[in-house]
Amino acid sequence: MTETFTFNAIGTVHACYKEKFGVPRQPGLVNVLSSIEIHEPCNRPEAFRALNDFSHIWIMFVFHQTRQQGWHPTVRPPRLGGNERVGVFASRSMFRPNPIGLSVVELKAIRQQDDKLFLDIIGADLMDGTPVLDIKPYLPYADAVTNARSGYADTSPVIKLQVTFHAQAIAGMQKLNSCYPDLQQTIRDILQLDPRPAYAGAANNINREYAMRLHNLDVKWQVNGNVAQVVDVVLADSSKP
Amino acid sequence: MTETFTFNAIGTVHACYKEKFGVPRQPGLVNVLSSIEIHEPCNRPEAFRALNDFSHIWIMFVFHQTRQQGWHPTVRPPRLGGNERVGVFASRSMFRPNPIGLSVVELKAIRQQDDKLFLDIIGADLMDGTPVLDIKPYLPYADAVTNARSGYADTSPVIKLQVTFHAQAIAGMQKLNSCYPDLQQTIRDILQLDPRPAYAGAANNINREYAMRLHNLDVKWQVNGNVAQVVDVVLADSSKP
Repeated sequence: MTETFTFNAIGTVHACYKEKFGVPRQPGLVNVLSSIEIHEPCNRPEAFRALNDFSHIWIMFVFHQTRQQGWHPTVRPPRLGGNERVGVFASRSMFRPNPIGLSVVELKAIRQQDDKLFLDIIGADLMDGTPVLDIKPYLPYADAVTNARSGYADTSPVIKLQVTFHAQAIAGMQKLNSCYPDLQQTIRDILQLDPRPAYAGAANNINREYAMRLHNLDVKWQVNGNVAQVVDVVLADSSKP
Repeated sequence: MTETFTFNAIGTVHACYKEKFGVPRQPGLVNVLSSIEIHEPCNRPEAFRALNDFSHIWIMFVFHQTRQQGWHPTVRPPRLGGNERVGVFASRSMFRPNPIGLSVVELKAIRQQDDKLFLDIIGADLMDGTPVLDIKPYLPYADAVTNARSGYADTSPVIKLQVTFHAQAIAGMQKLNSCYPDLQQTIRDILQLDPRPAYAGAANNINREYAMRLHNLDVKWQVNGNVAQVVDVVLADSSKP
């Protein structure tokens, strides 16, 4: 009875988010610049003609890193503190029967480089390497339901942590300034949303060091109460000579 | 280089639209009631727990009837009169590299019937038999971009035709009133958007009879200027004993 459908990726995301930990939980929360490299046979400029008249686009993508992990009928959304369970179809969890994601992002530019075609996008919540299945123009008259009632997720996630930077982290970022001029702001934007699993918030351990991979960097921080202090920003081991 | 992904339908649409002709071009334009029958193993009520706290849901589906027909890099959207071409990724055309559709609809109810699970939805633009890949809650804070600029499709489609009913059509509908009490309104809502291919509008032929299959009925109409007259509503041949 169940039908099966096979799709090919039309493109791949290039982004600063190198691992799941740290990726914002919805688009539009952190204004990072990412790009989608379009693959053959879709990488023909005419396939995107008039798309730059649209300020926003939908990206349909595959949760590629977690897609082998299967799904459960209920999940614990971060919104509910990680304690309460809702149905997987009442959530935007990546652990779903068909691990397809949906994000609206701002389209900054359509860019040809050598024989490659890229879409530059702002605000994506997509990991580096994410396979893209489709791109559609965002149509406010059809897609923007402003009066929709939205249960447990009725407002934008609040800022949970104040972010400070240790002198060592500031020194580390200064060395990287030519490559990543917006690095400090990006780190602040990510950490203030508190990317830790929801259940970690309660069991606050001020000695625990968290780390996420951003670009080719390791960003390390500690949390004390409602303050996240970035303790170090260094080139990741695998990036060192 | 291109990755391939395989998905199973999690459900199937039951709708009055039995063929492509007549299906509204976006959701929310015609307030018909449809339903999605959820298949095993997703048909467990707990997989939808808390979804009824959301007024609207996303449906990701497969354009199943046209998916074998392939795609072209450019398409002629009805909005532009069917003459001008835009890139397929600048359109919501069903003829796309991965024929996946995206519609937001109103969720009316989650309904268990015997051992089956249904979602009743309002305003869908989905053909009967459409395979559903995913259902997600609509999150206004993330999904409703009210200030988005939307190129050639910046407003809701306008009402193009005034719809009248010939006495024969009215008699036909009266016989069917117990089965389809909202039939006249539904037909009016569909035809006033002018479902004919865009290029047919210009070559107006007042003798031409158009027909669409709605439920198990054939609805027949003619167009003269900006008036569509429904000339007959009858049980479709295949429905007759």
